[in-house]
Amino acid sequence: MCYKIKSRIWIELNNKVFLGEGRVHLLMAIKDTGSLTKAAKSLGLSYKKAWHLLDAVNKSAQKPVTINTVGGKGGGGVKLTEYGTSLIETFNTINQRCWHFLDSELEKIKKL
Amino acid sequence: MCYKIKSRIWIELNNKVFLGEGRVHLLMAIKDTGSLTKAAKSLGLSYKKAWHLLDAVNKSAQKPVTINTVGGKGGGGVKLTEYGTSLIETFNTINQRCWHFLDSELEKIKKL
Repeated sequence: MCYKIKSRIWIELNNKVFLGEGRVHLLMAIKDTGSLTKAAKSLGLSYKKAWHLLDAVNKSAQKPVTINTVGGKGGGGVKLTEYGTSLIETFNTINQRCWHFLDSELEKIKKL
Repeated sequence: MCYKIKSRIWIELNNKVFLGEGRVHLLMAIKDTGSLTKAAKSLGLSYKKAWHLLDAVNKSAQKPVTINTVGGKGGGGVKLTEYGTSLIETFNTINQRCWHFLDSELEKIKKL
């Protein structure tokens, strides 16, 4: 008998979704690839879907999350701002702390 | 700016969903109504869907979660076992403790 408590978290801002797993995965992929096209591809999303997702994050955030880069090899790309990077880190930290918290709650189930 | 961290939890047993919000709501409705028909109706589920949901819970649980009652006014019904009641309580307790935990994590977001 192997019990596990799973969770999914998301952050709302003024009662609207601001950051969830999907958006954070997109930001992480942008950070890794420096390109929205490549980020979308790595997640199996259409460019349009990824663009709208990123636009929603930028529109709801207090500060810019990404900035467009121009020129260089292969033309312009997109990269995270310092604030964007801190959003990923904060979300992942809270998510992991939540998992640990729920692991510590497992004893309650074993007593049943 | 009003941030809130939301969560959804579910309990897995041997890598399969055992209890989630939907199943717990069904058990609570059965406890309240003493009838699977009434419980399904109160949740806007078809009887068939509710029956399969309850069957899945009973099949994955270590002990019976509900028992069928026979006779009485309006014919037979269904009621929770003591174990079934303890499942609801445990799930709701863990869920609420998770919400409180996430509220306590809000400071991390405000610092951004």
